[in-house]
Amino acid sequence: MKHILIVHGPNLNLLGEREPEVYGSMTLADINAELETFAQQHHLTLKNFQSNHEGGLIDFIHEQRHWADGMVINPGAYTHYSYALRDAIAGVNFSTVEVHLSDISQREDFRKVSVIEPVCVAQVSGLGWKSYIAGLEKLLDLKKA
Amino acid sequence: MKHILIVHGPNLNLLGEREPEVYGSMTLADINAELETFAQQHHLTLKNFQSNHEGGLIDFIHEQRHWADGMVINPGAYTHYSYALRDAIAGVNFSTVEVHLSDISQREDFRKVSVIEPVCVAQVSGLGWKSYIAGLEKLLDLKKA
Amino acid sequence: MKHILIVHGPNLNLLGEREPEVYGSMTLADINAELETFAQQHHLTLKNFQSNHEGGLIDFIHEQRHWADGMVINPGAYTHYSYALRDAIAGVNFSTVEVHLSDISQREDFRKVSVIEPVCVAQVSGLGWKSYIAGLEKLLDLKKA
Amino acid sequence: MKHILIVHGPNLNLLGEREPEVYGSMTLADINAELETFAQQHHLTLKNFQSNHEGGLIDFIHEQRHWADGMVINPGAYTHYSYALRDAIAGVNFSTVEVHLSDISQREDFRKVSVIEPVCVAQVSGLGWKSYIAGLEKLLDLKKA
Amino acid sequence: MKHILIVHGPNLNLLGEREPEVYGSMTLADINAELETFAQQHHLTLKNFQSNHEGGLIDFIHEQRHWADGMVINPGAYTHYSYALRDAIAGVNFSTVEVHLSDISQREDFRKVSVIEPVCVAQVSGLGWKSYIAGLEKLLDLKKA
Amino acid sequence: MKHILIVHGPNLNLLGEREPEVYGSMTLADINAELETFAQQHHLTLKNFQSNHEGGLIDFIHEQRHWADGMVINPGAYTHYSYALRDAIAGVNFSTVEVHLSDISQREDFRKVSVIEPVCVAQVSGLGWKSYIAGLEKLLDLKKA
Amino acid sequence: MKHILIVHGPNLNLLGEREPEVYGSMTLADINAELETFAQQHHLTLKNFQSNHEGGLIDFIHEQRHWADGMVINPGAYTHYSYALRDAIAGVNFSTVEVHLSDISQREDFRKVSVIEPVCVAQVSGLGWKSYIAGLEKLLDLKKA
Amino acid sequence: MKHILIVHGPNLNLLGEREPEVYGSMTLADINAELETFAQQHHLTLKNFQSNHEGGLIDFIHEQRHWADGMVINPGAYTHYSYALRDAIAGVNFSTVEVHLSDISQREDFRKVSVIEPVCVAQVSGLGWKSYIAGLEKLLDLKKA
Amino acid sequence: MKHILIVHGPNLNLLGEREPEVYGSMTLADINAELETFAQQHHLTLKNFQSNHEGGLIDFIHEQRHWADGMVINPGAYTHYSYALRDAIAGVNFSTVEVHLSDISQREDFRKVSVIEPVCVAQVSGLGWKSYIAGLEKLLDLKKA
Amino acid sequence: MKHILIVHGPNLNLLGEREPEVYGSMTLADINAELETFAQQHHLTLKNFQSNHEGGLIDFIHEQRHWADGMVINPGAYTHYSYALRDAIAGVNFSTVEVHLSDISQREDFRKVSVIEPVCVAQVSGLGWKSYIAGLEKLLDLKKA
Amino acid sequence: MKHILIVHGPNLNLLGEREPEVYGSMTLADINAELETFAQQHHLTLKNFQSNHEGGLIDFIHEQRHWADGMVINPGAYTHYSYALRDAIAGVNFSTVEVHLSDISQREDFRKVSVIEPVCVAQVSGLGWKSYIAGLEKLLDLKKA
Amino acid sequence: MKHILIVHGPNLNLLGEREPEVYGSMTLADINAELETFAQQHHLTLKNFQSNHEGGLIDFIHEQRHWADGMVINPGAYTHYSYALRDAIAGVNFSTVEVHLSDISQREDFRKVSVIEPVCVAQVSGLGWKSYIAGLEKLLDLKKA
Repeated sequence: MKHILIVHGPNLNLLGEREPEVYGSMTLADINAELETFAQQHHLTLKNFQSNHEGGLIDFIHEQRHWADGMVINPGAYTHYSYALRDAIAGVNFSTVEVHLSDISQREDFRKVSVIEPVCVAQVSGLGWKSYIAGLEKLLDLKKA
Repeated sequence: MKHILIVHGPNLNLLGEREPEVYGSMTLADINAELETFAQQHHLTLKNFQSNHEGGLIDFIHEQRHWADGMVINPGAYTHYSYALRDAIAGVNFSTVEVHLSDISQREDFRKVSVIEPVCVAQVSGLGWKSYIAGLEKLLDLKKA
Repeated sequence: MKHILIVHGPNLNLLGEREPEVYGSMTLADINAELETFAQQHHLTLKNFQSNHEGGLIDFIHEQRHWADGMVINPGAYTHYSYALRDAIAGVNFSTVEVHLSDISQREDFRKVSVIEPVCVAQVSGLGWKSYIAGLEKLLDLKKA
Repeated sequence: MKHILIVHGPNLNLLGEREPEVYGSMTLADINAELETFAQQHHLTLKNFQSNHEGGLIDFIHEQRHWADGMVINPGAYTHYSYALRDAIAGVNFSTVEVHLSDISQREDFRKVSVIEPVCVAQVSGLGWKSYIAGLEKLLDLKKA
Repeated sequence: MKHILIVHGPNLNLLGEREPEVYGSMTLADINAELETFAQQHHLTLKNFQSNHEGGLIDFIHEQRHWADGMVINPGAYTHYSYALRDAIAGVNFSTVEVHLSDISQREDFRKVSVIEPVCVAQVSGLGWKSYIAGLEKLLDLKKA
Repeated sequence: MKHILIVHGPNLNLLGEREPEVYGSMTLADINAELETFAQQHHLTLKNFQSNHEGGLIDFIHEQRHWADGMVINPGAYTHYSYALRDAIAGVNFSTVEVHLSDISQREDFRKVSVIEPVCVAQVSGLGWKSYIAGLEKLLDLKKA
Repeated sequence: MKHILIVHGPNLNLLGEREPEVYGSMTLADINAELETFAQQHHLTLKNFQSNHEGGLIDFIHEQRHWADGMVINPGAYTHYSYALRDAIAGVNFSTVEVHLSDISQREDFRKVSVIEPVCVAQVSGLGWKSYIAGLEKLLDLKKA
Repeated sequence: MKHILIVHGPNLNLLGEREPEVYGSMTLADINAELETFAQQHHLTLKNFQSNHEGGLIDFIHEQRHWADGMVINPGAYTHYSYALRDAIAGVNFSTVEVHLSDISQREDFRKVSVIEPVCVAQVSGLGWKSYIAGLEKLLDLKKA
Repeated sequence: MKHILIVHGPNLNLLGEREPEVYGSMTLADINAELETFAQQHHLTLKNFQSNHEGGLIDFIHEQRHWADGMVINPGAYTHYSYALRDAIAGVNFSTVEVHLSDISQREDFRKVSVIEPVCVAQVSGLGWKSYIAGLEKLLDLKKA
Repeated sequence: MKHILIVHGPNLNLLGEREPEVYGSMTLADINAELETFAQQHHLTLKNFQSNHEGGLIDFIHEQRHWADGMVINPGAYTHYSYALRDAIAGVNFSTVEVHLSDISQREDFRKVSVIEPVCVAQVSGLGWKSYIAGLEKLLDLKKA
Repeated sequence: MKHILIVHGPNLNLLGEREPEVYGSMTLADINAELETFAQQHHLTLKNFQSNHEGGLIDFIHEQRHWADGMVINPGAYTHYSYALRDAIAGVNFSTVEVHLSDISQREDFRKVSVIEPVCVAQVSGLGWKSYIAGLEKLLDLKKA
Repeated sequence: MKHILIVHGPNLNLLGEREPEVYGSMTLADINAELETFAQQHHLTLKNFQSNHEGGLIDFIHEQRHWADGMVINPGAYTHYSYALRDAIAGVNFSTVEVHLSDISQREDFRKVSVIEPVCVAQVSGLGWKSYIAGLEKLLDLKKA
């Protein structure tokens, strides 16, 4: 059975409450529940984690580096400047997929650049919570190859 | 039954032959067959189209604009400069998802900017041919909402 | 009698249907009819042409280069990047006026630069279909001089 | 009867004398006379004004804001940096058309950007004094709509 | 009675000790005491918070989002790059004023850009600790409107 | 008794009439009256001045340089490019505070840079007419120090 | 015997007619005849192709990819922005030399950057039609190595 | 006898008073007196003019354009952005020399670019009031040639 | 005896495990042991600290500011964007040396700029763990001076 | 008989030894011998020169300016910044061709810009030592014209 | 008697021969003779030096640093990039004036920036050989102060 | 015994005399003596070289390329633009360490970029003459590995 980390970055704990017209009405717990259902169908074990702390996200990735076989991460705003998070992802041995909930609503210029993407194997945005599912499917495919 | 366009941009006709270590060994026909299978399972009707001509892609989108309910497009290199293709997508009434086969192998700087993305509802890259599947699923979700 | 080319670039074939709040409700046929009326009043012979193909626009300009005495062109999105179209205009012996239907609605940054303008004798935007009329009047004036 | 402002920016008082190979041999008085003829034919009342003072142009626009129904302005070199003039145009309730006499002769880089255009409904350049006529026609059309 | 958050960003805990010629000789406790006096005069309840942790600041804003009616924040150096903090401010329902103690002494280029300001209702800098007072007065005005 | 200049830049004479949803419904006379009330309470003598002329603002600052002990200036659009105004402020011996009425509504890129700020002791924006009050309070504090 | 493609990009069909002071008085047919003479002397078989269509150039390169051992291409204005053409060149197995007729006359800034060059083995400009000869000689040398 | 304009831009009326450690202790009247002495020795007639108004400087240049044979101008801060002043200088028939009093003390980045210089025949900075003398000598030399 | 802080930034806790071909096979404990040996020989007392938290690093520097006489810091990826860390270093009274383990392997563009360096007295990179030794020697020299 | 300079810039004296996989195994003497053979066949007299000194290259070009009818120069790294060398080439009366040995191996960004090319009649790169031959042929053609 | 260095940079040895329409017909010897005449009138001793070698110019400045009381330098193209020459000027104790012969003919963009100017006390351009005279006069004035 | 080059770039011959508050009071001879002492202790043979000539530095590196096992170079101002020196370092087979004497005093923007560093194995700045020692120690370590 494969071990996958589900990592949610800053402000995602407010999901369902914060700007629902942009990010949807599901809470983070709702999303985690959906992912859990998917995981059981595909024989995956998930560990969920959310933090608003850049260092907290790095700590978690480090701590799980021997347990995990892959990671789906929504880095939130850290997507755009956290080279420390990027180094953490580059420094562990499993593959990572970068996901984002929304697409067209994220239009400020600073959101167009991801410093995380170059160390990931795929990037998915705009599918709502199913962006995470697409990320999990990518990791499943990688394992087969 | 929903009508979906599958549009492949320049050089994708060489798929399976061109740099297979980057783009995989499946041909465009293989991908279309996979998408057809998915379409039948989900009660979708697909129309496939590939062209190396910017104008040809625009013509096709125009011609199908009354038939189609959605589009999944891999704009290839036109992703990075075809404002004419962007205008074509913005000018029709159905939703479009932008997809790319590879992710980490596409690292020249000019590939980091998509002029197409701002007129699409989602963007998926790095899932191989399943990027198209993720696009189709997005369109299915939109139709339900 | 003077021979004038009226050239419409990509996506203008959808005029009247595409974003009418921006581009107006007249179709391309309507505009061509108006221009024809003007032409007859001013003893001009017009040849209309629309294409979504960059190469098609260039081919047409080349083919008509011995027939034509001037050109009014709405290059659409090719305005912003088609150096090939620019070279075609620079390579023929008649004068060209660049026109655009709308003005204030075109506000993305990429629309602020015209690579075509340096090889034209005038540029008109925001007058709706009368932008073409202004272009024709410019060509009439040039011929007198 | 409609009330239209004709505003000429810096250095245009030298028209006919300054670089006639670029700007033509007509004086500002000549242009105003032509515009007056047009105005009488189309039942327009014009008020002409020229100033080399950025503040003078703003003052005039302010003073005439209750009299005027529209404005045709050739901002001269203020086109490229006068945000104060832009704010003045944005702050009154009538529509404005930006015009320029010449086109291809204006080729220094700083002349490629207009900070005025985003608050105007149309922009015309290269038609000589008829650029003003095209502007007046635009204002006539607007009034009908 | 209104509930206002007073949030101090990184390195402000050293106030009074760190570069007093730039930031003044008052400590953070001194400032908080002044703000408390003002609050009592204006029937405000304040909650003070200081952290050097980007995530800690975000956590605090999240936790207080149902209690608070407004916030005055001095984001310190996070002003210039913390898009995560910006998202936190944008994601809660109360209004925020950005304040800085000093003005002319902050002259490195990187200090000229605030990524926080676009999600705030006002920005005050250079008034010393009274920058916070100006922020509180702004929030009082907003409440009346 | 202290002597303070209140200087209003271009287009502020239209206050209350121009885009009231952005700049509020108070006229410049209303603001000056409020400032006068404040001045009398704090034993300040004010001189008000408004001009749309860059040179007029500079002339006024020069003329008052021996009378004045401080200045509160809202440079309007000159904020963004008037190095001549900046030099005038730098060239006199009293302190200046830069103020702006609105904050979040001013979002075009060109409004993000102030060439005036480096020669001022404080900057306040977004407090409406109370931005001027905050500026006056800053000058009062400076005098005490 | 080696098989070499000679590909001429947009507007080169007008050669000899268009700006002869820049591009010389030889027609494309003249150049092709010279290249044919060279080819027979060196036991090369050539296929000539000219198109103004970006997609047409890509199609031709694709179609000939099993026949050809090398290519000399003058991409014309596509040199400066056609990433699709670049991808086509990168996607086939034979070597390509980029050539241009003129050198010093090509001085607009946009002509200084070639997006094609990184996927070619050599670049020659300014030798007139002999630029093509130099390209053929390069391909001959490559074959020997 | 030659007719020369001596034009002083914004803030130069404060000379001798404003930052004397940078600009020296001579007043503008002192400088004009020195220039007058030089003029009499060299059979020149001078007209001095100072204004803080961009438009005032342009007006003066226009008015004197038939009287003057040359101009020495210190454009002050208008050096860096007044394209209108530049156009005025370009639009008259006499030669102009741009001068500045100080050199090394002017170090902000915005002072490094002169938009005036391209329309002048020489530029002198750092010689104090003798910069004007060097400018006059240049004009004397030009007349002889 | 001198008191020196040894501060390790994000991801350095994985040293010896993460990309050993780049960063070497020594663990952080190994490095600390080597530094301890050096410290005893030179009569220095060290305090080691590692954190992935930007705020944690700042807290530590603040807490030790009365104990410490100097600091050697490897800021890891925070080198490139943490202005908050920079402010912390600038806000304490002891001298700091910035060190990095590797040199030539760090080649992404974002690694070329250090926002920390301007507040340090020296920078050493590429000496492996001996970069820290060089930093300690610098601090020893400073104390003598 | 024509007189041609062959000028080799910095580090080319190490040819054959330095990075042979990039620059080939021929020494500079080998290349000069090949060029000499070509010269005798075409009735050219060559003078070879190599220097690592920017000033030495300029001196040589100056000294030979009356002897030489043309020059083929490989400026090495001076290609990218030596405006002094550019001025030397522009200041003599004969034509110059810029050549480079390699093409695709030269990929750092700084190698993409040539400050020398604008003063040359042609540029050849990627043909190995035959780049010089192509340069010589260009000079032969020029002489005939 | 004062000791002044006259230093001429690269390509100035060709003066009178190279592009005389730009740089005039005087040779460097002519200029030196004129300067010598001036020097004798003003009790100055000059040492002239010309080199095309950046290092040669630096060596000369170093060698003369105890003899010289000032320097007038025309750095030629080194003006635009020689930080080594700049350091040499900054490293000696006498004052330097930067001069250039021509002004309006020097219009390529790279000629607009001087890296030498910040370490000089004045800059003069466009006065022909009298630029040097203006430089000498500046040095004379400095000595008096 | 290992052979190491010690190379000092432009203006370093003035060390001890030039701006001692920045670069220290030691002369180059003093530094070389210290390095010699170190060399004898560590069984190294040094060759010292200083030149203000870019080409001279390159020549020396070339000439010593068979003798030397490593190099410590302080490129002075050539650090920032000498791609020719960079190529020389890249073209020889031994390792090089880049060193600088000062750190915090070097603050102009142009000093922040080193074009030399990418071809060196380490970079040390701010340790005074001990920067060279750190470089030697690095080379000693490399030899052991």
